[in-house]
Amino acid sequence: MYLMRIGPVGSEKPVARLDDERYVDLSDVVADFNEAFFASESLAELAATVARRVADGAISRFAGERVGAPIARPHQILCIGLNYSDHAAETGQAVPDEPILFTKSPNTLIGPNDDVRLPRGATKPDWEVELGIVIGRRTSYLDSVDDARDAIAGFVVVNDVSERAFQLERGGQWSKGKSAETFNPAGPWLVTPDEIDDVRALGMWLDVNGIRRQTGSTSTMIFDPYFIVHYLSQFMVLEPGDLINTGTPPGVGMGFTPPIWLQAGDVMELGIDGLGAQRQTVLEAR
Amino acid sequence: MYLMRIGPVGSEKPVARLDDERYVDLSDVVADFNEAFFASESLAELAATVARRVADGAISRFAGERVGAPIARPHQILCIGLNYSDHAAETGQAVPDEPILFTKSPNTLIGPNDDVRLPRGATKPDWEVELGIVIGRRTSYLDSVDDARDAIAGFVVVNDVSERAFQLERGGQWSKGKSAETFNPAGPWLVTPDEIDDVRALGMWLDVNGIRRQTGSTSTMIFDPYFIVHYLSQFMVLEPGDLINTGTPPGVGMGFTPPIWLQAGDVMELGIDGLGAQRQTVLEAR
Repeated sequence: MYLMRIGPVGSEKPVARLDDERYVDLSDVVADFNEAFFASESLAELAATVARRVADGAISRFAGERVGAPIARPHQILCIGLNYSDHAAETGQAVPDEPILFTKSPNTLIGPNDDVRLPRGATKPDWEVELGIVIGRRTSYLDSVDDARDAIAGFVVVNDVSERAFQLERGGQWSKGKSAETFNPAGPWLVTPDEIDDVRALGMWLDVNGIRRQTGSTSTMIFDPYFIVHYLSQFMVLEPGDLINTGTPPGVGMGFTPPIWLQAGDVMELGIDGLGAQRQTVLEAR
Repeated sequence: MYLMRIGPVGSEKPVARLDDERYVDLSDVVADFNEAFFASESLAELAATVARRVADGAISRFAGERVGAPIARPHQILCIGLNYSDHAAETGQAVPDEPILFTKSPNTLIGPNDDVRLPRGATKPDWEVELGIVIGRRTSYLDSVDDARDAIAGFVVVNDVSERAFQLERGGQWSKGKSAETFNPAGPWLVTPDEIDDVRALGMWLDVNGIRRQTGSTSTMIFDPYFIVHYLSQFMVLEPGDLINTGTPPGVGMGFTPPIWLQAGDVMELGIDGLGAQRQTVLEAR
């Protein structure tokens, strides 16, 4: 399935996308794609509902609705740092021995095509195309990496927008440069694992103003999604609907010489094979 | 007011404590002390309700109910690191130029007397008595430190339980050692600011197995609560009900020579003048 939330901010409707033109409305059977949904609902049951509605012809057509993030604001947004060896190199940092964890405020989550606002005082805003993992059940102390497969509801494109001066020059920990309002566009779709051949071999890209800046593949991740979920589950309880940003490939602004920082008026476009594409306009601080 | 949530885990009832014996039940007018409550309700109105009920004699008596955290699971738990100069010294780290921010998973929140579980593989679990700030409204880009007063719903005792090996020896960022299940006891009360003479002059203490380990005062904070709220509001949007742990005074286990780590069976008792006291038993990893 390709799950989406469409409609105005704060009143998005949960649907299943069939293709670029058509969807199945699920708002009568699902309140939202939120923690309670992932905790209680079987995605297999939902797929059966979608199939039944398609058979019955209960199909709607997209009519230019805004696309929201495909999940409601999660309990937490966890992020893995420096998870692509060539990205670690471009930032001048060593390849980590084990996953580096940091977090973003959950209220950074926005739709894939919503505007990104520079925070006041920003001097080094940057982009990061990433594969996002959405957790499908309450998860703690997984016994094996392979068990992580059952804990994952699906995958999503995210832009882990960052303010490098806030992140690296303002006192020690990274969250400070990751949590500004609008800093985590996600979507357009939550793609369930059955729709993806191998999540560890997906091409990914990001353009700024039409210029290709990031080109990569999930195949060059240091720690793959299953490893990450297993690993994190040893340190904390993952809740249904939690979002994990798994790190970015090379080509972020801070990796250029001289660095390239986002400016108001810039347009970011990014995507991952099979998971869809995003487009954000960068606006001044409000 | 002294707001509390009493009853079994997951079905706590919101009440206002009058004294050690008596409370006013608020469960018919407030669903929970959660984000929606802080966003929509006026604490002044709630105080009027409490006063009216007291006048009417609508008073209940505590009967040994479990005490939950005085707020529901928040949108985020933010933490300030090394915010007491003598604590920074005992950990061998420099006094920060500006607040160090890190985060804990919101699902670490438990009641003040609930058991604390060591995570599997823990070797250096530690304690931290702290003053917690609860945010009372959606807050962003505060103009002045003084404006922070209006953004605060109240104050609470927290134990910012930490696993130092996970925090400092497992790859860079602190969240990893702060987010284990049960790692953030809070309460017993959310004390509204009008009940406190000066939140910047409150004694605080923590005992382990009856031995005094931490003695301090909020008067030795490097960055006071109003500074912290103003500061954080420049980097992110604070949501109603967000919890901010403001750092710990000297006397944590890692500050002793040799260090003292928590063990299963240990009992932590801690408190802050006017904000109440907590008592947790430490249990083995589950």
